Amino acid sequence: MVNFNYYAPTQVVFGRGAEDNLPCLINKYGGTKVLVHYGGKSAIKSGLLQKVEDMLSGAGIAYVKLGGVVPNPRLSLVHEGIELCRKEGVDFILAIGGGSVIDSSKAIGYGVGYDGDVWDVYTRKYEPQSCLPIGTILTIPAAGSEMSDSSVITNDNGDIKIGFSSNLCRCKFAIMDPTRTFTLPAWQTACGVTDMMMHTMERYFSKEDDMEITDALAEGLIRTCMTEGTKALKEPENYEARANIMWAGSLAHNDLTGCGTIGDWATHHIEHELSGMFDISHGAGLAAVWGSWARYAREENMPRFARFAKNVMGIDITGMTDLEAAEAGIQAMERYFESIGMPTNIHDLLGKEVSDAEIEKMADIASHGDTHTLGALKVLKKADIIAIYNMAK
Amino acid sequence: MVNFNYYAPTQVVFGRGAEDNLPCLINKYGGTKVLVHYGGKSAIKSGLLQKVEDMLSGAGIAYVKLGGVVPNPRLSLVHEGIELCRKEGVDFILAIGGGSVIDSSKAIGYGVGYDGDVWDVYTRKYEPQSCLPIGTILTIPAAGSEMSDSSVITNDNGDIKIGFSSNLCRCKFAIMDPTRTFTLPAWQTACGVTDMMMHTMERYFSKEDDMEITDALAEGLIRTCMTEGTKALKEPENYEARANIMWAGSLAHNDLTGCGTIGDWATHHIEHELSGMFDISHGAGLAAVWGSWARYAREENMPRFARFAKNVMGIDITGMTDLEAAEAGIQAMERYFESIGMPTNIHDLLGKEVSDAEIEKMADIASHGDTHTLGALKVLKKADIIAIYNMAK
Repeated sequence: MVNFNYYAPTQVVFGRGAEDNLPCLINKYGGTKVLVHYGGKSAIKSGLLQKVEDMLSGAGIAYVKLGGVVPNPRLSLVHEGIELCRKEGVDFILAIGGGSVIDSSKAIGYGVGYDGDVWDVYTRKYEPQSCLPIGTILTIPAAGSEMSDSSVITNDNGDIKIGFSSNLCRCKFAIMDPTRTFTLPAWQTACGVTDMMMHTMERYFSKEDDMEITDALAEGLIRTCMTEGTKALKEPENYEARANIMWAGSLAHNDLTGCGTIGDWATHHIEHELSGMFDISHGAGLAAVWGSWARYAREENMPRFARFAKNVMGIDITGMTDLEAAEAGIQAMERYFESIGMPTNIHDLLGKEVSDAEIEKMADIASHGDTHTLGALKVLKKADIIAIYNMAK
Repeated sequence: MVNFNYYAPTQVVFGRGAEDNLPCLINKYGGTKVLVHYGGKSAIKSGLLQKVEDMLSGAGIAYVKLGGVVPNPRLSLVHEGIELCRKEGVDFILAIGGGSVIDSSKAIGYGVGYDGDVWDVYTRKYEPQSCLPIGTILTIPAAGSEMSDSSVITNDNGDIKIGFSSNLCRCKFAIMDPTRTFTLPAWQTACGVTDMMMHTMERYFSKEDDMEITDALAEGLIRTCMTEGTKALKEPENYEARANIMWAGSLAHNDLTGCGTIGDWATHHIEHELSGMFDISHGAGLAAVWGSWARYAREENMPRFARFAKNVMGIDITGMTDLEAAEAGIQAMERYFESIGMPTNIHDLLGKEVSDAEIEKMADIASHGDTHTLGALKVLKKADIIAIYNMAK
């Protein structure tokens, strides 16, 4: 077990009607002029945006609105948000949506206190000193950004996607009403479940083998995502299934499942290049490459993959070698991904072949021109990344 | 799944050498004059107190000391601490020890901002409006007070023990170095493990049956306490076992294992009267009465006790009725308690019979003269509480 720092200060207000607490929460955390930041149609169509405006007006809290956040949120809208916040004297950001809206809010929050281009934060040219306080009404459980310290922004060409992590941006509060997720399409539900499972698995497949408490929590969390994910796809308005998924998504990325481990995160980086280049869903991209990563990296800790097969996938591994158990576990997870409609290779993800030139380019960006490695369980150079893309073709 | 609020803002700094971060953490959370609050011999003997004094002096942070906290911490020392804080202008409390020292610190923290007697907070005559900021160096994992909102104080007669919960008192930081627990005696280790298991089980045995994620985490946590508890008793200097126990103790009582459930807490209340009257260890008292409570209350949700037998105690319940499975699970837990040296009845706890008059008095206090009930799974009146004490005799 390696030393760790655990800090997850976000106040979670969870359940039916939770959003009625919004004005109190904004007051509690000092908001007097709010940027209401959101995506597109769904917040309008569901009536949530109007309800929020009514609540803010009713409580005498001033606000301005900025919609239009897209999946893989873009830098240009972040710039627009920063300008708007400065012009209007905004002191609090309310993110309505999922990870993209929250991440866009975090980037705006960093940018308001910095004279330069906020992209410098993501390219590591500038270490932010502050972030506007952020609260969220979560409507898409997946990214876990509502309790995490991370945000990922994509440049406007759409070909560079970079993450940045700091405690400064942790949400002050997260309002989560599972009924708001009843209308999520099956594809988005499945992508979300995959993303939260992968947030846990990135931390679980580690070189360390001696953090029983963290492993037990992680295994329980992944199993829950699987059973409740299947249930929510069959019954989109099953409150308990939606509630379990929603809370699992937050716990999967608030560091709880990584206490004492060194996370790997190679699958996330390998996927980021795919969604940066092809603008596909992050969750689907993760499912498409995970099995290939697992087969490439497992030799570094085969007993852990065998444990995964037994404790997470429920496979009786008696009499199997570690390699056989590991392979059985990976295959079972791939069958699960398929059962919820996720691709398990890049062809199924994109609906077309990925070319050698595209693989070369993605591996080059991911490895910063072969000057940078990915992963912790198995350290991957550019050639390794190319090999994994090829295995996942 | 019932609606919930989850708020666990304590910054945890965990691992070997974690205490070296102390001056930075006190500065971060605004402490300029610190009350160093501790128990007795062990903080002195281990050298920890001297190390803390050296670190504070080295960092130019002023402090005063108050030792002498006893298990079931007393009101008189709390009064002394409040006076000292006022006289010295203390603005931060550093608790060095376990739950008793942290709880005493919380009571002092409430009392400094209140002109009346702080006992009014515990008797519900006064709702506190503030608490001095508190940080802790944890040396006894058990009570979970380092991340919880609760504190329990005993009056000076030693016959009334009352708890009070509020987010105001949550520790700003908790420093946890498992090596500081290597020297804990076997009895204290076992009492601690029992306490953290019971913090989880009080929340787990609920009427609700639809919070899969919370159940999965709770089951993993209890299993971990059991395996790692046994390991730590055999090998007191096993770092991983001590680390798993230490972190489990915090997670068992920071509300994580109660999200979406309505906790029962009757066992805790029934035990509080025992340790109030006989000054025995809280953990041992819980082990002594839990089985009797479980047999008395299980009819309210037999399938949950059967699930416990299967998922926590690892019993193959195929072909059993729910009652048979429940009984098998309770017996297995009692055997576990015995294996770590815990009593499973009041006679073994006290080394003597408890009298009918004593039972009557404890049940009377617990039920506020039969005007108040205990429990949520099964609601217990005074007569029920007497029945449970008699079953546990």
